[in-house]
Amino acid sequence: MKKDSYSVIGGRVPRSDARAKVCGTEKFVADYPHAGTLHVAVIRSPVPYGELRGVNRTELEALPGIVATVFAEDIPGENCVPIVGRDMPCLATGKVNYVGEPIGLIAAETAEDARRALASVKLDIHSLPALIDPEKARDPDAPRVFGDDNVFSHLVIRRGDVEKGFAEAAVVVEGFYRTPYQEHAYMEPQGMIAEPEGDGSMTVTGSMQCPFYVQGALATVLGLPLAKVRVIQAATGGAFGGKEDVPSLVATQAALVAWRTGRAARLIYSREEDILSMSKRHPAVIRYRSAADRDGRLLAVDADYILDGGAYATLSPVVLWRSLVHSVGPYRCPNVKVDARAVATNRVPCGAFRGFGSPQILFAVESQMDRLAAELNIDPVEIRRRNLLSDGDATATGQILEGSVGALETLEKAQSAAGKAPPKLSGNSRRTGRGVSTIFYGVGLGATGQHLARTGATVQVLQDGSAIFSVGTTEMGQGMCTALAQIVAEELGIPVSRVHMTATDTSRVPDSGPTVASRATTMSGNALLRACSPIRQTLLRIAADLASTEPQNLIVVQGRIETTAPKPRSIPLQDVIDECYRRRENLAEEGWHRVEGTTFDTATGQGNAYVTYAWATNIVDVEVDIETGVVEVKRIVAAHDVGRAVNLDGVEGQIEGGSLQGVGFALLEEIISQDGVIQNPEFGTYSIPTAADAPKVEPVVVEAPFDGGPFGAKGFGEQPLMGIAPAIANALADATGIRIFELPLTPERVLAALSQKKKK
Amino acid sequence: MKKDSYSVIGGRVPRSDARAKVCGTEKFVADYPHAGTLHVAVIRSPVPYGELRGVNRTELEALPGIVATVFAEDIPGENCVPIVGRDMPCLATGKVNYVGEPIGLIAAETAEDARRALASVKLDIHSLPALIDPEKARDPDAPRVFGDDNVFSHLVIRRGDVEKGFAEAAVVVEGFYRTPYQEHAYMEPQGMIAEPEGDGSMTVTGSMQCPFYVQGALATVLGLPLAKVRVIQAATGGAFGGKEDVPSLVATQAALVAWRTGRAARLIYSREEDILSMSKRHPAVIRYRSAADRDGRLLAVDADYILDGGAYATLSPVVLWRSLVHSVGPYRCPNVKVDARAVATNRVPCGAFRGFGSPQILFAVESQMDRLAAELNIDPVEIRRRNLLSDGDATATGQILEGSVGALETLEKAQSAAGKAPPKLSGNSRRTGRGVSTIFYGVGLGATGQHLARTGATVQVLQDGSAIFSVGTTEMGQGMCTALAQIVAEELGIPVSRVHMTATDTSRVPDSGPTVASRATTMSGNALLRACSPIRQTLLRIAADLASTEPQNLIVVQGRIETTAPKPRSIPLQDVIDECYRRRENLAEEGWHRVEGTTFDTATGQGNAYVTYAWATNIVDVEVDIETGVVEVKRIVAAHDVGRAVNLDGVEGQIEGGSLQGVGFALLEEIISQDGVIQNPEFGTYSIPTAADAPKVEPVVVEAPFDGGPFGAKGFGEQPLMGIAPAIANALADATGIRIFELPLTPERVLAALSQKKKK
Repeated sequence: MKKDSYSVIGGRVPRSDARAKVCGTEKFVADYPHAGTLHVAVIRSPVPYGELRGVNRTELEALPGIVATVFAEDIPGENCVPIVGRDMPCLATGKVNYVGEPIGLIAAETAEDARRALASVKLDIHSLPALIDPEKARDPDAPRVFGDDNVFSHLVIRRGDVEKGFAEAAVVVEGFYRTPYQEHAYMEPQGMIAEPEGDGSMTVTGSMQCPFYVQGALATVLGLPLAKVRVIQAATGGAFGGKEDVPSLVATQAALVAWRTGRAARLIYSREEDILSMSKRHPAVIRYRSAADRDGRLLAVDADYILDGGAYATLSPVVLWRSLVHSVGPYRCPNVKVDARAVATNRVPCGAFRGFGSPQILFAVESQMDRLAAELNIDPVEIRRRNLLSDGDATATGQILEGSVGALETLEKAQSAAGKAPPKLSGNSRRTGRGVSTIFYGVGLGATGQHLARTGATVQVLQDGSAIFSVGTTEMGQGMCTALAQIVAEELGIPVSRVHMTATDTSRVPDSGPTVASRATTMSGNALLRACSPIRQTLLRIAADLASTEPQNLIVVQGRIETTAPKPRSIPLQDVIDECYRRRENLAEEGWHRVEGTTFDTATGQGNAYVTYAWATNIVDVEVDIETGVVEVKRIVAAHDVGRAVNLDGVEGQIEGGSLQGVGFALLEEIISQDGVIQNPEFGTYSIPTAADAPKVEPVVVEAPFDGGPFGAKGFGEQPLMGIAPAIANALADATGIRIFELPLTPERVLAALSQKKKK
Repeated sequence: MKKDSYSVIGGRVPRSDARAKVCGTEKFVADYPHAGTLHVAVIRSPVPYGELRGVNRTELEALPGIVATVFAEDIPGENCVPIVGRDMPCLATGKVNYVGEPIGLIAAETAEDARRALASVKLDIHSLPALIDPEKARDPDAPRVFGDDNVFSHLVIRRGDVEKGFAEAAVVVEGFYRTPYQEHAYMEPQGMIAEPEGDGSMTVTGSMQCPFYVQGALATVLGLPLAKVRVIQAATGGAFGGKEDVPSLVATQAALVAWRTGRAARLIYSREEDILSMSKRHPAVIRYRSAADRDGRLLAVDADYILDGGAYATLSPVVLWRSLVHSVGPYRCPNVKVDARAVATNRVPCGAFRGFGSPQILFAVESQMDRLAAELNIDPVEIRRRNLLSDGDATATGQILEGSVGALETLEKAQSAAGKAPPKLSGNSRRTGRGVSTIFYGVGLGATGQHLARTGATVQVLQDGSAIFSVGTTEMGQGMCTALAQIVAEELGIPVSRVHMTATDTSRVPDSGPTVASRATTMSGNALLRACSPIRQTLLRIAADLASTEPQNLIVVQGRIETTAPKPRSIPLQDVIDECYRRRENLAEEGWHRVEGTTFDTATGQGNAYVTYAWATNIVDVEVDIETGVVEVKRIVAAHDVGRAVNLDGVEGQIEGGSLQGVGFALLEEIISQDGVIQNPEFGTYSIPTAADAPKVEPVVVEAPFDGGPFGAKGFGEQPLMGIAPAIANALADATGIRIFELPLTPERVLAALSQKKKK
């Protein structure tokens, strides 16, 4: 029987990890006991580009407390950390390509020994002229960092007739936009512990998003079969994409020492080492031209942009691809021409970061939309309403949308929640303004990642009616484990407090791909439902026996199985489970889920890029001090179509956190890099929003259920950040009349723009 | 297609844990890093029976380095370590019932602090007259240790008409047999580490056979749902039944400290503490009367015996049941009357030990058989041949045997391998003799354990063609993990070196019952085959696509899938796996196996006690020095029907090890207990056989395949020990003419018997 309503789905469930994290009892990798464990230090390149000629290895190995060193020539497997490509070595050999690139490893008895040895390293490196400016990467005389042309990837969209679109336009606006590095600023820096096992296998435990990536890297570098590499995720203190690919570096570094010495080895990055050497959000340089008719309807988009990938390809090709798919925003547009390139420079490799290339391009898209509105004197909300994608419309990649398109509903609900804009101030230095942005987000890995679009899970119901489950995706603070526990609880009728997730561990479940692209709840949720299904059938079959009825007359509610036919009866779930154990029924199952149907033609950039999309509207109120240039965000109304909110508390928490990270991207965060050397690798000089900077965030949850998601849920972990920066830039323009094309919107940039405006 | 022969099954495969164990890289629980981990000391009763009135708790807690103490009143759950019954407390309250009974726990920063505190314990105990002699347990005025009559369990067999059998007999012999405590003498003492997790769950890692028993005990004592208790087996250095039930004590002791303090806690028993307080083989006192016709055919058995269970019931009722089922040996006997009792005393609780009650009774059975032969002047081999059970015969419990009865084949092959007995010596003090025993062993848990006769497993094939599997049974040195890897390798065509077993962990697989009763390979092997089956089907389906044929035309061989139709073709397995990953086929599955069909009527002792039986014949040659009384075993020919030898090396290793442990039981091992206090709790005074005592063991493998076992295998881990003691006693009788009724056959007993004989 179908239930009328859900028992647990859509409720407000406290996060299962909340208490441990608040009370300080959660065990992060740095908290693991480490007596007898070797400390690893990483010898890194001090120059952005150079020939590596030697190192004082013998001298280092003779230092007190130093057990071993490891260099490229020692690597037992392949000297490669495979990500999308295989260009990145584990330890540099021949050339060094960025400041901070790993060259060698020191294994020391204590952290102090390791530090002392690191200070004694003498590298013989012949410096070469470096490629620092991504806009010069394609110059014929630029240093060759990657391939023949320093281009990791070049992707296009060719749709309709762009020339015709511009020719027919009532209005055309063009802008040159720049966005900076953004640092993930996860609370917990990178860290790994590697333990060699007696049978020659290797176990690595640490902070990470993607255990199967780490497992693959370890197998490659150590030359071991995958079955002999076990990777366990420790409690992970934030990630935001910053623990997608780079933990493979940290893990292989720790594991090489463990392999070389036969002892457990730990490597916990300091904040400075972490900021200097780990991935960042790709800086972008974007030329963007938009055309609309007199009613504000988009006619054409012509964009050309580059992402600075840094010294190795890492994830740049796929980051670029996602940015491409999102490069027109959530709008109908018949004529599109986009050229997107990820290029190489002698800078730290960039990687995944919440939004994955889309926040950069959406900053341009949504700034342009407001500029079109201004030119046409149309309200910014109204111009979006006229262009927003609806069910049956085609995206910029030609994908016809089929259901779960909540775009317009987010716009309407956000506007209704936001109400009237605050009155314009005058008479002092403060100016108020309101900005809006409308964005979308392709859920999951999409067409270029379809080979990874599968996931496994196991569920078992224990004798006392509690349950445990395992998945291949990870909890990193986003609340996945609670949402998944709710899914199991809903399906099996077990109270959510008695449903327990095991630590994610490559040896428990099949390779379930990475925990990225806002895919964890949908993918693992679906796999869990598959695993629960036969268990649920068994429970219903046994309950039917106990109640002398047929399984189809029964419904599962929390803690009970109920029937109305032949007569009303409510059986405690525990009685059913007891009977299952008496009969030795199997209450443990494995579930498997894969996603089908995405396509992409690289020649035209056309295809069904993602299986579904999430949609959002942000309305932001700011106050700008025109004397100091400080932009203060007073209020964010954030309406998000999440398909189905599994845990309402979790969804709102994501909206609040993502919005604040968006405020940082918009106003504060900027890695200063000079000649390839990061100048501000600590939180004293790299500012992120604090509680004092936090505006009032008002989450509005929209549910346009996605058929392919568990209970209709689709992913949305990333989108809360994505539309904030352009909404703030638009609010700044509304408040002051200035349009700033480069993030972050620092007081210096605001004052410069105001003074420029005054001059005009 | 069916294969003609196996690729891996039946081969000689090096144990996967051999290298680590030989090289010292295996990590036992005592090897885990323990900086910051609390040390636990256990306060124990110094008296066999008494009223516990108080302890200097405040004083103890004030000692330097002492973090906490834990007593019965602190226990958050139930003060009970559940085994078969629920009579045993975790920490004594009110009364203490044996020397060494746990009373309280001390949590100390260092082992030294713990030792010092233990020395400062002052217990206020009022001693009571104790029940030490099991033969007095049923006296009306005996102290009441358990229930009304100190009887844990009374089991019977009533079959045929015993009086009539004795009346018709040509010969009747009666004997009173005694067997002593036997200490397991596992190389690694008991040990556990308990770690409280941030979310309130508890993880316990340690040396054990039965993680699910430990999990249940922890959930009971800590008052946690099973889902919040995770138990991981560390590499376990031997067990022999001695880590079946008692690790629950060790684990709850460590976990109570971890719960009380919120810190990780470790408890590693010293050898002395281990021998004093952990379980032993039940001492037995057996009256046994047998009758045969003139041809030596058994007509009747009448036996009455007790097992000394010690202070708590533990496993005694099921140990007693197994001994009962084996109480007539592997022989046809129409008339049987057996009364078996497990009784309580104020001694250390006894438990499981290789053979599980059967070695005691088989010592009597096989001594009696030789005595009948001697009375009738029939050759000992011949009298067995005449009585041995064959297919279609009924056992003493009335079970009609249906297949896999290799009894006679073991007798014949052993005799043929043994050849002629060595010539009788004379002219000096040495005498030679040959003895034979024929035994059987009910495989698995049998009728009284049918509720536990289920097991789960998971298997997954990884992208590089390696595989991992998990089971709920444990490796403790017996070679299970290698045998199971072979089963997976055979079924999936993956080289055995690339098949990896994960550590057994309650959170990985469903409760699979205990690893006892020689059930691990059959039960987990079957569950693995179930898990492999759909993976194999997928591999065949994809291979059929690649080879343009039908799955039924394909066979899986090592590393390849082959076909002869439509044309001969051999596809590398890796190509098939690559294609599976391309298509995102699920190569991870869960398997479940349960055993049906055992029955038992407690009123008559009749039923299908076990699903199948293993069979063995031992032929032993000894030399006895009649001046020193020393019995030296020169040679053991051990023929065992194992159904199918999965790993021939493993089977032979078990035969060798078990035989030697049998030599210890026969000749050397004897716990001396005085007034309930064990006098020899160390290997200086409790002698076990060393390499110098090891006879030549010649394994003979007989294979009468068992339909219900993986590839025909049935369990046999225990039986190598079971028939050794009576064969040696029979050889001693053959060499010297003396019959000794009490084990071990020490020089003192031999000399006493020789002098007795001389007197006659």
